[in-house]
Amino acid sequence: MCGITGVYSENEALTSKLAFFSLYSLQHRGQESAGIAVFGDYIHIHKGMGLVNDVFGDKKLSEMVGRIAVGHVRYSTTGESKIENAQPLLVKTKSGALAIAHNGNLVNYQTLRNQLENEGAVFITDSDTEVIAKLMAKELLTKEPEDALKRVSEQLRGSYTLVMALNDTLIGFRDSLGFKPLVIGEGEFGYIIASESCAIDAVGARIIREVRPGEAVFIKNGELEFVKIEDSSRKALCVFEYIYFARPDSVIDGISVYGVRHRIGEILARESPVDADIVSPVPDSGTTSAIGFSKESGIEYLEALIKNRYVGRTFILPHQSTRELSVKIKMNAVRKNVEGKRVVLIDDSIVRGTTSRKIVDMVRSAGAREVHFRVGSPPIISPCYFGIDMSTREELIASNRKVEEIRREINADSLAYLSLDGLIEAVGLEKGELCLACLTAEYPVDVSEAMECRRC
Amino acid sequence: MCGITGVYSENEALTSKLAFFSLYSLQHRGQESAGIAVFGDYIHIHKGMGLVNDVFGDKKLSEMVGRIAVGHVRYSTTGESKIENAQPLLVKTKSGALAIAHNGNLVNYQTLRNQLENEGAVFITDSDTEVIAKLMAKELLTKEPEDALKRVSEQLRGSYTLVMALNDTLIGFRDSLGFKPLVIGEGEFGYIIASESCAIDAVGARIIREVRPGEAVFIKNGELEFVKIEDSSRKALCVFEYIYFARPDSVIDGISVYGVRHRIGEILARESPVDADIVSPVPDSGTTSAIGFSKESGIEYLEALIKNRYVGRTFILPHQSTRELSVKIKMNAVRKNVEGKRVVLIDDSIVRGTTSRKIVDMVRSAGAREVHFRVGSPPIISPCYFGIDMSTREELIASNRKVEEIRREINADSLAYLSLDGLIEAVGLEKGELCLACLTAEYPVDVSEAMECRRC
Amino acid sequence: MCGITGVYSENEALTSKLAFFSLYSLQHRGQESAGIAVFGDYIHIHKGMGLVNDVFGDKKLSEMVGRIAVGHVRYSTTGESKIENAQPLLVKTKSGALAIAHNGNLVNYQTLRNQLENEGAVFITDSDTEVIAKLMAKELLTKEPEDALKRVSEQLRGSYTLVMALNDTLIGFRDSLGFKPLVIGEGEFGYIIASESCAIDAVGARIIREVRPGEAVFIKNGELEFVKIEDSSRKALCVFEYIYFARPDSVIDGISVYGVRHRIGEILARESPVDADIVSPVPDSGTTSAIGFSKESGIEYLEALIKNRYVGRTFILPHQSTRELSVKIKMNAVRKNVEGKRVVLIDDSIVRGTTSRKIVDMVRSAGAREVHFRVGSPPIISPCYFGIDMSTREELIASNRKVEEIRREINADSLAYLSLDGLIEAVGLEKGELCLACLTAEYPVDVSEAMECRRC
Amino acid sequence: MCGITGVYSENEALTSKLAFFSLYSLQHRGQESAGIAVFGDYIHIHKGMGLVNDVFGDKKLSEMVGRIAVGHVRYSTTGESKIENAQPLLVKTKSGALAIAHNGNLVNYQTLRNQLENEGAVFITDSDTEVIAKLMAKELLTKEPEDALKRVSEQLRGSYTLVMALNDTLIGFRDSLGFKPLVIGEGEFGYIIASESCAIDAVGARIIREVRPGEAVFIKNGELEFVKIEDSSRKALCVFEYIYFARPDSVIDGISVYGVRHRIGEILARESPVDADIVSPVPDSGTTSAIGFSKESGIEYLEALIKNRYVGRTFILPHQSTRELSVKIKMNAVRKNVEGKRVVLIDDSIVRGTTSRKIVDMVRSAGAREVHFRVGSPPIISPCYFGIDMSTREELIASNRKVEEIRREINADSLAYLSLDGLIEAVGLEKGELCLACLTAEYPVDVSEAMECRRC
Repeated sequence: MCGITGVYSENEALTSKLAFFSLYSLQHRGQESAGIAVFGDYIHIHKGMGLVNDVFGDKKLSEMVGRIAVGHVRYSTTGESKIENAQPLLVKTKSGALAIAHNGNLVNYQTLRNQLENEGAVFITDSDTEVIAKLMAKELLTKEPEDALKRVSEQLRGSYTLVMALNDTLIGFRDSLGFKPLVIGEGEFGYIIASESCAIDAVGARIIREVRPGEAVFIKNGELEFVKIEDSSRKALCVFEYIYFARPDSVIDGISVYGVRHRIGEILARESPVDADIVSPVPDSGTTSAIGFSKESGIEYLEALIKNRYVGRTFILPHQSTRELSVKIKMNAVRKNVEGKRVVLIDDSIVRGTTSRKIVDMVRSAGAREVHFRVGSPPIISPCYFGIDMSTREELIASNRKVEEIRREINADSLAYLSLDGLIEAVGLEKGELCLACLTAEYPVDVSEAMECRRC
Repeated sequence: MCGITGVYSENEALTSKLAFFSLYSLQHRGQESAGIAVFGDYIHIHKGMGLVNDVFGDKKLSEMVGRIAVGHVRYSTTGESKIENAQPLLVKTKSGALAIAHNGNLVNYQTLRNQLENEGAVFITDSDTEVIAKLMAKELLTKEPEDALKRVSEQLRGSYTLVMALNDTLIGFRDSLGFKPLVIGEGEFGYIIASESCAIDAVGARIIREVRPGEAVFIKNGELEFVKIEDSSRKALCVFEYIYFARPDSVIDGISVYGVRHRIGEILARESPVDADIVSPVPDSGTTSAIGFSKESGIEYLEALIKNRYVGRTFILPHQSTRELSVKIKMNAVRKNVEGKRVVLIDDSIVRGTTSRKIVDMVRSAGAREVHFRVGSPPIISPCYFGIDMSTREELIASNRKVEEIRREINADSLAYLSLDGLIEAVGLEKGELCLACLTAEYPVDVSEAMECRRC
Repeated sequence: MCGITGVYSENEALTSKLAFFSLYSLQHRGQESAGIAVFGDYIHIHKGMGLVNDVFGDKKLSEMVGRIAVGHVRYSTTGESKIENAQPLLVKTKSGALAIAHNGNLVNYQTLRNQLENEGAVFITDSDTEVIAKLMAKELLTKEPEDALKRVSEQLRGSYTLVMALNDTLIGFRDSLGFKPLVIGEGEFGYIIASESCAIDAVGARIIREVRPGEAVFIKNGELEFVKIEDSSRKALCVFEYIYFARPDSVIDGISVYGVRHRIGEILARESPVDADIVSPVPDSGTTSAIGFSKESGIEYLEALIKNRYVGRTFILPHQSTRELSVKIKMNAVRKNVEGKRVVLIDDSIVRGTTSRKIVDMVRSAGAREVHFRVGSPPIISPCYFGIDMSTREELIASNRKVEEIRREINADSLAYLSLDGLIEAVGLEKGELCLACLTAEYPVDVSEAMECRRC
Repeated sequence: MCGITGVYSENEALTSKLAFFSLYSLQHRGQESAGIAVFGDYIHIHKGMGLVNDVFGDKKLSEMVGRIAVGHVRYSTTGESKIENAQPLLVKTKSGALAIAHNGNLVNYQTLRNQLENEGAVFITDSDTEVIAKLMAKELLTKEPEDALKRVSEQLRGSYTLVMALNDTLIGFRDSLGFKPLVIGEGEFGYIIASESCAIDAVGARIIREVRPGEAVFIKNGELEFVKIEDSSRKALCVFEYIYFARPDSVIDGISVYGVRHRIGEILARESPVDADIVSPVPDSGTTSAIGFSKESGIEYLEALIKNRYVGRTFILPHQSTRELSVKIKMNAVRKNVEGKRVVLIDDSIVRGTTSRKIVDMVRSAGAREVHFRVGSPPIISPCYFGIDMSTREELIASNRKVEEIRREINADSLAYLSLDGLIEAVGLEKGELCLACLTAEYPVDVSEAMECRRC
């Protein structure tokens, strides 16, 4: 998972700052590294490990002057966390400079890399972005950007939403299945492309519309042009954007993320009602659905758990023997709210189940009489090959266990998952417009190569 | 405002880690610097600027072995942010090593410092903690720790809750008015003293009870002893601990912070009802009161605003011309939730009012039909001299304006503050047990010296 | 100018340390960045800005386990100092992993880069090393390493001494003109290749012999094999290795650098005698020649100038108005040694002349009666295109001035340069074995492309 | 050992830069930490670990504006290296701000500290500088600066050369025995005080004269006044300033350091002649004496050893098993110069002897026929208690061995030390003007307290 953005601004001094603000609002999509490339009289690129605000300061942004910017925040899907993998990737080609920010994962990466290596290409990184860059450079030798992109897209398989700067042109592109979102906004400064609409709000711009699956947008000399690159027979928008990844204030492909999560709670309450005193989220991922559950069920909304706002993902537990304290550091129960109560906890999903167990126990220790667990998605049973780190099948608690077994493992009085139909209803798109592979094991593209050789 | 902690652990390798976890859970009380002193065969001290997790790593904690630890997180109340001011302050005296972590502010600092300087004392820092250290050292020359503390306390005026290590003894102490909280817990490892009960939960310990105003606790050789140091005719617990500072999962002087904030919402709904479609917090400070307001009023609880979880206090806006984007970076409106709606926004307080105005405007821009503002505390009209940075009187929007004027300034359709009686009811303590000075301008101790010479 | 090294060690844990020691002793050849790649069960690479000792610590070296190491220290020949240019360059090819450390400069870089880009190659860096890497990868697709190297070498023009790791093989190679030195040593651990023999001494190994122009050495499975790659009709060893670059304790192509510099002093004394009281070096570059001058002339050797040992190349003068103090910071006159004396100063060369002027003035201010300047090389009149930063022709003081004019500019009582014949005699090689282009403007290869498009 | 400086400049923006340049030229006296305090409208202080150039940048120096600066570089005499010990020490007293930079060591530190603690003083550091600061503060309560200094000096025992800023006055002071040097210069900007004259040269100023033992200099409002503080019946200037510590271009108490070292070489050649082919220094400490030895003996001066200019004192050998390579990293033999030769090596002193042995072996391995060792000082037989880290008596190779035994241990063909009389002759001062305690075990003050309780 990553966040990408592109900015076209006539005010050349503002471009890098707009990209910065945009990335800042996409920080939830990746905290490992951040980078921005700006194309002006000079080509500027700066990347670093850590949060956007750690990587970029005022001085650095002020040096990066130009009309076009491409930005990226990265969430490591592999164990390896290193600066070489930070994006955008900037390459110099016969046809000029090309900066690429990529959100997605190619399932035929190894085949394409082998082909390129057989032609003598050398690779500096292990990222599929370098494969895309080399294919683009090759096609640009003989083709205009549109046709080059078309030809490259025919060769790629998997998910690949891209924002690119090619000399004086800013390009946004979404693969024909549209796994990952991309949306365009317009402001006084010019145009902005971003993974989510919250980034458009963050720079004070208005949404124009999303980039459609198989479509590209070219922005050049202040002109914006949409171009259909590939036919898109079906869509496969990642359903977990709605369930978990996207920010609740974003609108993805026309649908409010907050609205989906609220409806998930309402439908959960109807599908799996429970006699209880309070309903509480597991913070923060379950908050919106818990509010919806409360509304539909009429059960009082009251927080059983408070999260420590200062726990970052970089938190390293400082001692083996203190590992049992790990969940207590992240959140704490509010005894007054749960003592003697029957509590419904709402979370968005269960992956391995170990954290859920600790949370249930914590709420019990604080005096809860009963703890009922409701999950805002169906069981995750199959790995994702399109850019999301869902762990291998072996680690997924639901891959080989019945719901009742899981309930026992997490020590809940009752456990219920949202149904697949309930999820589709909550989203409000057709089933054929979503990628539900991790819930159904039915992949919208052939993933056999990726299954053999998992890089991430 | 600061957070302080003390640990007594027979497992000497665990002591520093427990202090670390404790400080981690008190991080909301201060993000400028963090420090821990450990007294064992050697005396270890480590302090640094930044968050607890930035200052301490596994290696550093593993080196700090001993039975007693004192920890501190600091929130800068002055403009000056420097390592010299980080605590605990460690000094070597005739009577041994003394480490002090202080939460509070002396109002007779200058008088005491002058006296000490007249006796030839030299000062390395500008902190009132050094004054306390020197007074302690002086009294310890001729007195036992209890009597020394008694004699020092007689000389101090203002708020001073302390955790100290003195050779093999861990000491917790709260001034006779008890401005700042202090609570003791017991775990398998030994004892823990901390500003808030959430720190006791964080290390898996149980609350014993709070340290009472004017009381000290001495922990030595595994024995815990409470000692009355000063008579306490009245209490003056800072009411803003309940309104804003403390974590909602903490229990302060026997009262759940979450409960107080929830009741504030309920009372606000009764005192200042409004005909509206949704009630929403200004995140995160208004969340609990908004839930209470919704419950009491029956108006649907729905989030109008989503906060960017990655905005830290160190956020520096990277460009003058982009300052208007600052609030958008911190939070964003959820259009779907507010469009065409009458919205009640709940916040805990209003200080200068500029942020409130931007938030009201943001919700209006997202389509709200009406925006009503409800504040979970009475107007702040007077500065705090006991350790809280409330700005000077000039900057306080309520110090010289009527509510209606403030309503116009923040552009709300209606505005109401909680009444003082309502606040006292919500807290559940007697009026005479609280410090309400910033709301009433009636100070529980003479602050004339501090008013002339404001250091912070 | 750069320093390169390669290590083959059966003791896999020792390999990286030997490369480290080797680079440490080559530090004078480049202080901008340092890097080591180790090929073992895993491929390790670590590069950083700064000195070898800053970039590598014990922990990092201990992680880098393997039989083969390639190391590089870089001296920036361009204004740009960035981590992207640090070497070794590690690429992954169809034929495996390839790490390259390069000392030299291609004069047909742009032509080769254009050719590769026309075939669709993309470039990550602006270094000629990436051109070499891509050409190698291409040829390795169809050829064995020896033949690939042969084919690549036919295409390269300029200076290119290389140390490479290709899977399980360590390769050293010197272009057919042998601009830059390369020498092989043998120790108990295995083999070492390095720019200078001082690196072989540093790891306690013995010199086997130099790599000859046009020759490669392949080390694999403990076997060392010399292979003639290209005919070498003439040699063109950079004469400035003897005059300035190499460490005096090194032996280059069989000739002691110390000996050459000492003879330079002796010949200078014969060619341009002077009636004086003391002879002194400009430290450190003139030291050995000054000792030789003293011996031949019988004039007492006494230091007129003492250098501050702590002045690094990164020294930034902290204020405009203090710039006149800059030379005083670097060295200081010893008044006692020069007062009332006639002083001969010996330096290795004069580039722009500004520093020489300041030094002469400083010695005069300390009381010298006369200051005579003797230079251990002929005037530099033409730029270098083979990897040495001699400034452009415009900046070279000798490019358009007679010796008498220069004497006046540097304010010396007399000035004399070593003759070209004297230099050749001091080195002891044939004229046709040396590159003397910067002194004669006669280039051993066609540099017309490089003259048009100077990258460095 | 430390370096100290003080600057008085009417150009307030230049003051900190002059202090910086001065410290830069005193860097050889301490590389552990550096600090500068500037007194102007505000009091600025900045200290850090590492070299002057690492601690201070242009930005920091530009912020430090004022008329008076005090600077310090520290060489750790204890094992502990920490920022708390960095100087100047800045304290605030009843009489104003006081910054102290101290070069020396008190032998009655513990007694004085006990006295102060008995009066209630608390200590933040373990340095004797804090003792001096507290004594000064105490005396300043009732006395003018001159009398306060007089009274403090009566209480101190040991070596204590001080530079202090007290409000608007810059003070230099040297204890009555004058262990450590201090010299005053005058420039266009105003005045400078420094440990050595090279610092006066570095800022383009002229030497006025040294501060005499027992004398203070007060600089205030542009007026400079010398004041006799204590009678000085005898002097005890540390002879190792001439032998080793000071820079050769410095003049100490009127005597050129270079001249002393050169004479040491001449006298050594007379006292202990040897039939040899070349004479060479152990670089860099033996260089000047080797030049003198060559001149007197007529034996050719030729460098047998070349030092790696990039080896810093922070060099950490990265692996146990590679320790034998340590000396090779620092210096290397020049085979051509020593092969088949009888070599005389000159070093300034021998402390433990282990390095000398490795050097002799290295020269032999490079082919020397004979290796004769000559030492520019008598044997060191007793520890220093006045600020120089000479190791304990047990570690001193000469403390319990005859010269012949040491010769065998270092594997030399012959070994000779300079005689005490020869040393005194070389220096040119009376025996009673020097501290020769480490050579004679006769201490100029009672060190019995320090012998019991060695802090450093």
